[in-house]
Amino acid sequence: MSARKKTTAKKASKPAAARRAASTRAGAGKRQTARRAGAKAAGKQVAKASGKPSSAGAGRAAAGARGGRRGPGATQRKVFYFGGGRADGDASMKEILGGKGANLAEMTSLGIPVPPGFTISTAVCLEFNERGKRLPAEVRADVLTALANVEKEMNLRFGDPERPLLVSVRSGARASMPGMMDTVLNLGLNGDTVRGLAAMAGERFAYDSYRRFIQMYGDVVLGVPHDRFEHRLDAAKRERDVADDVDLTADDLRRVVADYLEIVRETTGTPFPQDPQAQLWGAIGAVFSSWENQRAIAYRRLNDIPDHWGTAVNVQSMVFGNMGDDCATGVAFTRNPSTGEKFFYGEYLKNAQGEDVVAGIRTPQPINEASRAEDTKDLPTLEREMPKAYRDLVAIYKRLERHYRDMQDIEFTIQSGKLWMLQTRNGKRTAGAAVRIAVDMAREKLITKEEAILRVDANALDQLLHPTIDKSQAPPVIARGLPASPGAAVGEVVFSAEHAEARAKGGAKVILVRTETSPEDIVGMHASQGILTAKGGMTSHAAVVARGMGKSCVAGCGVLIIDYAQATMRIGEHVVREGDWLTIDGSSGEVMLGRAPTVVPELGGAFSELMQWTDKVRKLRVRTNADTPQDAEVARRFGAEGIGLCRTEHMFFEPGRILAVREMILASDTSARELALAKLRPMQRGDFEGIFRAMDGLPVTVRLLDPPLHEFLPHTDEDIQAVAAALGRSVGDVRHKLESLHEFNPMLGHRGCRLGITFPEIYAMQVRAITEAACRVAEDGVKVRPEIMIPLVAHARELERLRALAEKVIAEVRAEFPGTRVRPTIGTMIEVPRAALTADEIAHHADFFSFGTNDLTQMGYALSRDDAGNFLPAYVDGGLIPADPFVSIDEEGIGQLVKLGVELGRKTRADLKVGVCGEHGGDPASVRFFAKVGLDYVSCSPYRVPLARLAAAQASVVLGSAPR
Amino acid sequence: MSARKKTTAKKASKPAAARRAASTRAGAGKRQTARRAGAKAAGKQVAKASGKPSSAGAGRAAAGARGGRRGPGATQRKVFYFGGGRADGDASMKEILGGKGANLAEMTSLGIPVPPGFTISTAVCLEFNERGKRLPAEVRADVLTALANVEKEMNLRFGDPERPLLVSVRSGARASMPGMMDTVLNLGLNGDTVRGLAAMAGERFAYDSYRRFIQMYGDVVLGVPHDRFEHRLDAAKRERDVADDVDLTADDLRRVVADYLEIVRETTGTPFPQDPQAQLWGAIGAVFSSWENQRAIAYRRLNDIPDHWGTAVNVQSMVFGNMGDDCATGVAFTRNPSTGEKFFYGEYLKNAQGEDVVAGIRTPQPINEASRAEDTKDLPTLEREMPKAYRDLVAIYKRLERHYRDMQDIEFTIQSGKLWMLQTRNGKRTAGAAVRIAVDMAREKLITKEEAILRVDANALDQLLHPTIDKSQAPPVIARGLPASPGAAVGEVVFSAEHAEARAKGGAKVILVRTETSPEDIVGMHASQGILTAKGGMTSHAAVVARGMGKSCVAGCGVLIIDYAQATMRIGEHVVREGDWLTIDGSSGEVMLGRAPTVVPELGGAFSELMQWTDKVRKLRVRTNADTPQDAEVARRFGAEGIGLCRTEHMFFEPGRILAVREMILASDTSARELALAKLRPMQRGDFEGIFRAMDGLPVTVRLLDPPLHEFLPHTDEDIQAVAAALGRSVGDVRHKLESLHEFNPMLGHRGCRLGITFPEIYAMQVRAITEAACRVAEDGVKVRPEIMIPLVAHARELERLRALAEKVIAEVRAEFPGTRVRPTIGTMIEVPRAALTADEIAHHADFFSFGTNDLTQMGYALSRDDAGNFLPAYVDGGLIPADPFVSIDEEGIGQLVKLGVELGRKTRADLKVGVCGEHGGDPASVRFFAKVGLDYVSCSPYRVPLARLAAAQASVVLGSAPR
Repeated sequence: MSARKKTTAKKASKPAAARRAASTRAGAGKRQTARRAGAKAAGKQVAKASGKPSSAGAGRAAAGARGGRRGPGATQRKVFYFGGGRADGDASMKEILGGKGANLAEMTSLGIPVPPGFTISTAVCLEFNERGKRLPAEVRADVLTALANVEKEMNLRFGDPERPLLVSVRSGARASMPGMMDTVLNLGLNGDTVRGLAAMAGERFAYDSYRRFIQMYGDVVLGVPHDRFEHRLDAAKRERDVADDVDLTADDLRRVVADYLEIVRETTGTPFPQDPQAQLWGAIGAVFSSWENQRAIAYRRLNDIPDHWGTAVNVQSMVFGNMGDDCATGVAFTRNPSTGEKFFYGEYLKNAQGEDVVAGIRTPQPINEASRAEDTKDLPTLEREMPKAYRDLVAIYKRLERHYRDMQDIEFTIQSGKLWMLQTRNGKRTAGAAVRIAVDMAREKLITKEEAILRVDANALDQLLHPTIDKSQAPPVIARGLPASPGAAVGEVVFSAEHAEARAKGGAKVILVRTETSPEDIVGMHASQGILTAKGGMTSHAAVVARGMGKSCVAGCGVLIIDYAQATMRIGEHVVREGDWLTIDGSSGEVMLGRAPTVVPELGGAFSELMQWTDKVRKLRVRTNADTPQDAEVARRFGAEGIGLCRTEHMFFEPGRILAVREMILASDTSARELALAKLRPMQRGDFEGIFRAMDGLPVTVRLLDPPLHEFLPHTDEDIQAVAAALGRSVGDVRHKLESLHEFNPMLGHRGCRLGITFPEIYAMQVRAITEAACRVAEDGVKVRPEIMIPLVAHARELERLRALAEKVIAEVRAEFPGTRVRPTIGTMIEVPRAALTADEIAHHADFFSFGTNDLTQMGYALSRDDAGNFLPAYVDGGLIPADPFVSIDEEGIGQLVKLGVELGRKTRADLKVGVCGEHGGDPASVRFFAKVGLDYVSCSPYRVPLARLAAAQASVVLGSAPR
Repeated sequence: MSARKKTTAKKASKPAAARRAASTRAGAGKRQTARRAGAKAAGKQVAKASGKPSSAGAGRAAAGARGGRRGPGATQRKVFYFGGGRADGDASMKEILGGKGANLAEMTSLGIPVPPGFTISTAVCLEFNERGKRLPAEVRADVLTALANVEKEMNLRFGDPERPLLVSVRSGARASMPGMMDTVLNLGLNGDTVRGLAAMAGERFAYDSYRRFIQMYGDVVLGVPHDRFEHRLDAAKRERDVADDVDLTADDLRRVVADYLEIVRETTGTPFPQDPQAQLWGAIGAVFSSWENQRAIAYRRLNDIPDHWGTAVNVQSMVFGNMGDDCATGVAFTRNPSTGEKFFYGEYLKNAQGEDVVAGIRTPQPINEASRAEDTKDLPTLEREMPKAYRDLVAIYKRLERHYRDMQDIEFTIQSGKLWMLQTRNGKRTAGAAVRIAVDMAREKLITKEEAILRVDANALDQLLHPTIDKSQAPPVIARGLPASPGAAVGEVVFSAEHAEARAKGGAKVILVRTETSPEDIVGMHASQGILTAKGGMTSHAAVVARGMGKSCVAGCGVLIIDYAQATMRIGEHVVREGDWLTIDGSSGEVMLGRAPTVVPELGGAFSELMQWTDKVRKLRVRTNADTPQDAEVARRFGAEGIGLCRTEHMFFEPGRILAVREMILASDTSARELALAKLRPMQRGDFEGIFRAMDGLPVTVRLLDPPLHEFLPHTDEDIQAVAAALGRSVGDVRHKLESLHEFNPMLGHRGCRLGITFPEIYAMQVRAITEAACRVAEDGVKVRPEIMIPLVAHARELERLRALAEKVIAEVRAEFPGTRVRPTIGTMIEVPRAALTADEIAHHADFFSFGTNDLTQMGYALSRDDAGNFLPAYVDGGLIPADPFVSIDEEGIGQLVKLGVELGRKTRADLKVGVCGEHGGDPASVRFFAKVGLDYVSCSPYRVPLARLAAAQASVVLGSAPR
């Protein structure tokens, strides 16, 4: 008999983790193997994963049945009966029945054995909470009618002292909210009915059930502190000198029950309700009320669940897995939720209830050979112990998977040899499993390839591309920052980019820890396993660069205090020295002191196959942001179809170049600047050659110099002196230049094409380097497609003038390479709101647009990404805005600018190529938006390319676009 | 005989100034009185003033005549004859004939004596310059035909050795471009015709004319350096030992002519052209070419004149004012251009040419008694010397003024007693004269009141509201900055706000000189006469605050180097110490070492009357930006109809408050913050009471706290220590707070309503102070209309939440004042692009919108006003963008956001009140735009209120809105 309470609900989502927590408490941790825990814990990691896409299949299946099965006026109904093969609801009605209720109804209609019961709709929840916690009279009447049907079906009677019907009262919202709301089991017991139950199932069982009921009802409905009951139970065990509940006798429990009743009377001032109907109304009200408890509200905020959804209440006849050795309770998945392998996978406990599993005293047994793990290799299986029930279960799981056309997570109870199904739902799964299952099911023709594409959460793919931490063996978490760039990293702490580089050259694995990073740290970041910063948000320099490099990064870890002079950092009481080992998890933001074992994922054949399908379906092309030939190659392996953003300035920081850059900036006139630029040109040309070769046959968009010049200058006294000395300038000169370049709001300052307007020689050099590089590699037979991109254009005239400059330089270079077919196109970033608003004018001078949605968001939203840390989290957590607009594009606001920019641009020039190269290019939700507004491509960091390909394909499927 | 060349053209626009320059050269400066120079120089100050609005009247008059007079195909014509009462063109055809040509045609048609001639249209100019400087053959043919008509009319023949026709060849563009393009006089003279001329008008006159012609033609057409001719002429005078040209005899001049011809031959390699037709083609070509000379191009850039307008060429029969004592040349205005008084005002020279006036040897004589000045009080008048010609002139000027319905600036020449008109045009005038003339003419029913309103350039009103410098007695200009806040100021230099305050208390007049100002300097700025800064643009802190206070300010004076420690500043070679006298002119940006006399303007009855008319015509209301009762009173006197922006934070900087503000910021938790806020509340309440009383009956919009908190914290070590000591905190605490509040882009950071979201107690305090103040003054019978404005809203949810907060506080206060009728409305700034884009959502929670177009421009254009100094000037000067978008709103880009915001807002809420409170609210061009998009009001600094009223009325007239 399975009778789970809220803690059991948690178990459903992370069975092994919960058990481990429990078993650790019980000192049984040694039984858990790392592999098993790691694999099972994955169930939690995809908590939000398969929700939306994978429900589409089931929704469609149910929708097809809807018209026929549900009569008119069904939506007016508030209480929905299910039982004996007949149900008022079905799986399509999650909105009003909640997920659990809808599936119980569906299973019932399918003829699957489900304990009879009824569901009170979510509409009643809102009514109840709005009307001062009162259940409408007609709902009470309908409940009593439904209850009578249950009595009939079970041949029991609610409150009958001889054959008492007991029920469970559970919440069930549209979206799964594990453990967030309250549940009451064994309802219907009182001084009379407990004797009837005793006669039917034994004294000990009856009083244990009654004890559990009083405790649960007292806690959930009457507000009696949980620990008051626990203390009494502990006392009973001490008196009897036993360790476990199960060792208490019927008499012991009878005394405990008496004391429990007294505790309730004392605490609440009234006796425990003995009238089963009063119990029922109390429990229903408590479940509805729990929709508004703090925990539930916080959970909804975190998971974007609207308050107005409400929860349904499921009242269901109790069945018991703990009435004897012919009883059991268990959980199973129709396929392996960790790996996606196609076999029936589950565990069970004989003569047990959900609670017993939670207690962690007994290790669940595997349901079959395939489900065996290291710690269960000697335990008997359900298949062997109860072959009949197992055969029934197999028949049912197969039927359910076929019916729902998705992997199912099922709960069952066997009472006296009879199998009852308590729940079915689409099973949560790891990203790897999601891919495997989707591809397998499409191959099995259970679903179409398009459905397979929709089944995988693009965001979850990140898991497949980065190492993860084996949490079971990880050291404790000492701090938490922002999960700025996914993946786990382990290394020795270093506090400077120089040390990172030096130590890495010596073969060390290092974690670079900085208050914040700056472009000067790039080489050191490259040399590190991961980056940890004390300041900065999801789009700080560290975060953006790390994502581009595919490095793990935890950013904005506020508790971290670095003492560069001492080469130590303090995190609370911990003092970490340079060279100490540190583990960071860029997927969760966790920081661990010491070394955690990491698991490097393997990309299987299913992944490749799915990716090939996406390429056939999607219209939107996917490029990458890459500044080096190495990045370009990685991205190409991930399927990038070009470079959408190559930032020339990142090349400027390499040693041996930065001095020439500084010389250029410190130049007092144009000719001195041109001298310095002449030194830079061959270096830039070399960079471009490498990138063009790596992207042979694919387009490469090179952005001309964008950041304000002061970013390239030294800032510390020491550096200033060094630079002055190296360039033969006075320290005063350098300082003066620094001061004159200082800006209050550099984001809105002298950068981007404004540099090209005021110092045309800089852009001329870059255009020359690009064109020369292109002509040179073309001579070697490389198919080169350069695109020159002008940043920060706000007014069409800027682009007009700079285009003329670029065209002049290109013509000069072409004259030096007679016979070359290289023809760079010229386009612009659309990243200033004004540019989007006047895109029709700008398009006259542009071969392409590339939306820079990072800056467009910063300016359009008045939101400096580097400074938003002081208030943006409060906005997102407080529900003021639905999501961080730097993670997913703000469709309502900034999205309008993108849409307008595309429309206006194409109005002027129908063949205008339009893409996006901000961080949003790698965010699935944003990619879907970009597909909707008709962009030609997105560009994202190399490691996001597969996500973007999948998201683009999903958009095509949803939008019904023709495949290209 | 009047024969003016380019220097004469200059004279027309600034007669006295040019004369002064000339007479100073000749050592005759003593004759110029300060009053006269000042008054006449005003002609230059309004160089751009009356252009657009005042031309409307004449344009309309002429347009009425257009249909009747001009035949079909007239626009195809390229050469337009005028003479003998018949003209091909008219005054409406400025576009193709230029201003001069159109008016010559118009005068001819009116039967006014104009030397006959013809105009070659502006279209030919473009053709000429595009076709490699070649005159099309059909144009040459038409020119010869027109020339034949002139010959007939004058009974002279071009090139005829006995009765030679001489012509002038002058440029004449659509807009007046004084002195920018070339002119050739006396064309048609050669070795033969000079003898014919000698026979007709005397030897000396003929050879002097020939000399002048060769010199002018040589310079303008043949490119012979001007000084080569001058040297020769000087040599002739030295030989003859005379000082002036007039003392040279006919023989002397004959020799000079021979040498001039030789100079031309030597320099150009070919002889001076003797064929009059060749001379004519050369001169026409030179004038057309001069449209593209550097000077002309630069002038067009400065004055927003499009390149494609081109210039016309006027070829006109010469008449001579220098043929004897019955000859004269002169200039007159139909009313006094300095004061606007209604009398005929002008000056002339007997037996003279324009050049003689420029030479400054003779003082021009007044044309009548009324035109007499100090230095001309003993000279005979034209009225007395040539009564017949004077009577003719009076009849003509009256007719012209009636015809053109505007004050005319006319040029005339009297040749042998006969009056010839050479030019008429709407006369330039000072702002004061413009007001007086417009009001007088409307009273005289010459124009309507609406036309009177259009006649005054709103920008020029600034002159009337601020002291001006008497330039004739001003010390030399030692530096130039941005004209950041108009008006002249004189005072002793101080280098700190504290000193400014202290010295001012002691009765001193001071000029505050700072590298840049910050909010802490406000009290010191108030105490100063004017502010001079080394850094910052037109919308820097100093500029904005000074304009708000109506103080003179010169900002961004880059050459200024301040040494605070030594209390000195360096400007080039000048070292200025604290206490030295300094004069600044915030209208021109000039900085003068020493004390200049200033003239305080008087606002006459005409001004008041015009302002009353504007109030009847305009729909747009005009409010003011004011933070103190004093500012509010000033603005009210200027006609402000409410406060559109009261910045609460400006009150925070007053001594005795800033400490409480800092305590609030440094508070470690909410309750500590509330304690500090409780200290601030009575102070804020007091401020609001004062403002509400000052604005009795008018609405007052109070903006809640907007700037980032770090703006209120100390920054120097000394200040940090002082604050820490005063608040009993450690220096480390204060420093830590400073660091944690540091922002990379504060413009896009933690400010505005984000403070209200994260620290609701701050906004709650402010709303309470506002409401309490309103209820208190209401009890005294003051009619109070408070409006609470939430800044920096980007998302509707922000306003929703803060509105709820404000409403709660208001309800609380209202409960404390039972019976109060005070009901503050609640609205928001629209200053974030996203807010404009989602204004429909935001309007659900707003009673009013107020566009903050400063910030909207900064964000929408990606343009930090504090940082734009490094590139924006290059943009404006280089013609990349038409105007500084912080001065006049960028209609094409940012204007779209305003328009969209208004439309979306009113879509949600038709009665939404919409205003603007950025700096643009005081810019006439922007005000016209705001009227066009349907705003209800603009709000500007007190001293801009009259400008805004006038501009708003002009918009109503132009848009044809019904008067309110």
